[in-house]
Amino acid sequence: MKSDLDALMQAKNLDAILVLGNAEHNPPMYYLTGGGHVSAATLIKKHSEGAVLFCGDMERDEAAKSGLTIRLYSEYPWQEMLKEAGDDVALMNAMRLQRIFNDLNVSGRVGVYGHSDLSSFFAVINHFQRLMPGATLVGEPRDNSIFMYAMETKDEEEVARIRRMGKITTEVVGLTRDFLTSHNVRSDEVLIKEDGAPLSLGDVKTQINLWLAERGAVPTEGYIFAIGRDAGVPHSQGNPNDLMRLGQTIVFDIYPQEQGGGYFYDFTRTWSLGYATPEAQKLYDQVNDIYDKLIEDLDLNASFRDYQRMTCEYYESKGHQTPLNTKDPKQGYVHSLGHGVGLNIHERPWSGLTANDDNILKPGVIITIEPGLYYPEKGMGVRIEDSYWVRPDGVMEKLAEYPYDFVLPMKKWKK
Amino acid sequence: MKSDLDALMQAKNLDAILVLGNAEHNPPMYYLTGGGHVSAATLIKKHSEGAVLFCGDMERDEAAKSGLTIRLYSEYPWQEMLKEAGDDVALMNAMRLQRIFNDLNVSGRVGVYGHSDLSSFFAVINHFQRLMPGATLVGEPRDNSIFMYAMETKDEEEVARIRRMGKITTEVVGLTRDFLTSHNVRSDEVLIKEDGAPLSLGDVKTQINLWLAERGAVPTEGYIFAIGRDAGVPHSQGNPNDLMRLGQTIVFDIYPQEQGGGYFYDFTRTWSLGYATPEAQKLYDQVNDIYDKLIEDLDLNASFRDYQRMTCEYYESKGHQTPLNTKDPKQGYVHSLGHGVGLNIHERPWSGLTANDDNILKPGVIITIEPGLYYPEKGMGVRIEDSYWVRPDGVMEKLAEYPYDFVLPMKKWKK
Repeated sequence: MKSDLDALMQAKNLDAILVLGNAEHNPPMYYLTGGGHVSAATLIKKHSEGAVLFCGDMERDEAAKSGLTIRLYSEYPWQEMLKEAGDDVALMNAMRLQRIFNDLNVSGRVGVYGHSDLSSFFAVINHFQRLMPGATLVGEPRDNSIFMYAMETKDEEEVARIRRMGKITTEVVGLTRDFLTSHNVRSDEVLIKEDGAPLSLGDVKTQINLWLAERGAVPTEGYIFAIGRDAGVPHSQGNPNDLMRLGQTIVFDIYPQEQGGGYFYDFTRTWSLGYATPEAQKLYDQVNDIYDKLIEDLDLNASFRDYQRMTCEYYESKGHQTPLNTKDPKQGYVHSLGHGVGLNIHERPWSGLTANDDNILKPGVIITIEPGLYYPEKGMGVRIEDSYWVRPDGVMEKLAEYPYDFVLPMKKWKK
Repeated sequence: MKSDLDALMQAKNLDAILVLGNAEHNPPMYYLTGGGHVSAATLIKKHSEGAVLFCGDMERDEAAKSGLTIRLYSEYPWQEMLKEAGDDVALMNAMRLQRIFNDLNVSGRVGVYGHSDLSSFFAVINHFQRLMPGATLVGEPRDNSIFMYAMETKDEEEVARIRRMGKITTEVVGLTRDFLTSHNVRSDEVLIKEDGAPLSLGDVKTQINLWLAERGAVPTEGYIFAIGRDAGVPHSQGNPNDLMRLGQTIVFDIYPQEQGGGYFYDFTRTWSLGYATPEAQKLYDQVNDIYDKLIEDLDLNASFRDYQRMTCEYYESKGHQTPLNTKDPKQGYVHSLGHGVGLNIHERPWSGLTANDDNILKPGVIITIEPGLYYPEKGMGVRIEDSYWVRPDGVMEKLAEYPYDFVLPMKKWKK
């Protein structure tokens, strides 16, 4: 939680943190400011002190919504600095950062964070390090940075926001199911629209985006609604021109986000319209079986990766490749079991076999459980996924309910 | 245009460029790959050679849509490298980058680009520079990087995509106008819904997002629909709880983007519902007047900043503060006249008074023209904005038509 940041800074020996970039679509900055339309901001937080946010004059009202101490870049007249910098914009920005550091008395080890333009950052930081030998900037691998540790456990407001996105997600999934199963079917088992034209994956996605927007959620652009072979490649979004057909696995992995780069929900169902091939049904049954076993077994404070191992062992007993018996498997079980979800669609805790010992199901984490099996060459893939909150009382609470049907009967078609 | 990249690299003495991050919401990577759901990719383009894109196995199909040469990270077994790196993830990533550079024979001056996590980047690049003394990484201020120069002029496909966003934008603005003017009005001049509850700015924004989603455009989250005092602060998004009232300036600055982080359109109208105060009408007339003069005067290959100067001089003749007579003005004319628009909502050419000489209205640029006047303390702001394409034949073509009415008559209310 946010209140852990000072302890995390201390553990990493950081005297201050520097966060750069926009307030939106920039998880560390969003986490500290609450988002809003503030661009190219500079936030500094010294250990055991409140954060100070620097921004342009035009965005002062947006910045004030953060509740942080706001200061304006216009305190540092850029025209004069640019002249002093010999028209070198990167040097001018480094000089401004130096003045900000001096004004706030920042020195020592300073962690640097944010999601922003790498080229500008690199140019500015090279100058800054020369100008400011008293401050040592420190980078951290994103997956285990102090922000990822702080964000790992959620407070009640965060849980409520993620739960709300879960409600929207499952509503939209239900609408998508009704939409698909209401279509007529051509003799070649392709779904057709009222005008007789085939229903494409692009048509379905347009509907999904609309339903999300109606509910104030951002249609997550990379979400997966893949059919046939594409369903067998875990992160393939599918081709908009693909036609919707009976008897093919459809992987629907939807992870909408609050507007302005806020909290995500993560959810997957796999469907087969009208009927399922015996081979796909067998895969589905195995995924469903291990999913149920996992949920039954989840224990408070257990190691997340133990469940990845359990999943691998189960799939291996069924004859599949997994990360436990195969290096970089391209079919079978090819990913890890889940991940935390919050302001990042993927965040701590991690469940990979090589994840650190500290990735545990501790109170306050929100994780996905998403076992799957993929056979792209056979045109099949199956994944089931829900998001669970590890409650302070130790209960694993699914944040949104939705049925697990695999075969969706078509309303106007019978085998 | 993209075909200018090699010449731009040569002019900046770059032997290669390195682009990092996701394909979506990352303009340099989108520009070279065409977007898609490819995360944490590494793209390398040597001078006068095609680009090579490295990505994870699971995203190989998405990456292949770019048409570039695709290579997989699994060529570099991370398990072994991580052991070699003593479990230091940043060092391991630096080692992988070193191997990629060696495999592609990259050395010399390498420009680094992309929009990504600064902390990871900084940690990796510090190791990489030590490991790879034969390559010198180079950063550039974003506003004038080689990508901003390449992107500045658009090819026909890019113009068509921006024009399509313009069509969607103006359709949605028209729907918003109809929506607002159809409401009933309470005796205190607040607009009310059918159930008698007041119409809030949040209600209006929900509708706008829906109309955009219906058209396959992403509801740009930071767009501005501000009324009253907020309208007087150029980048204030407005407060969702503000009520819609007659006789107040509403600044509607809408800049939707194609899904997946593609092209933007940029557009503003200012409205006053039912009637306008004489003071607001006077501001509007002045903004409209200089807008017309500017459009009349735009010349092929003219310097963009000359029109900023012309705008300042006009406003000064009317008694307003401008960047020409006031340092960082907080009221009056407080910003610059316009900017290029494309994969970035703000890109080259720039129009500020201190912009470089090379910011000219050359064939192929798409620019906004957006004069405005702001008096937050008086609760008023006015801006008019359209996007123009400087055609190869020298004609300045407005990419989407929309009327310039200021006062919008209410259908069920008369003064």
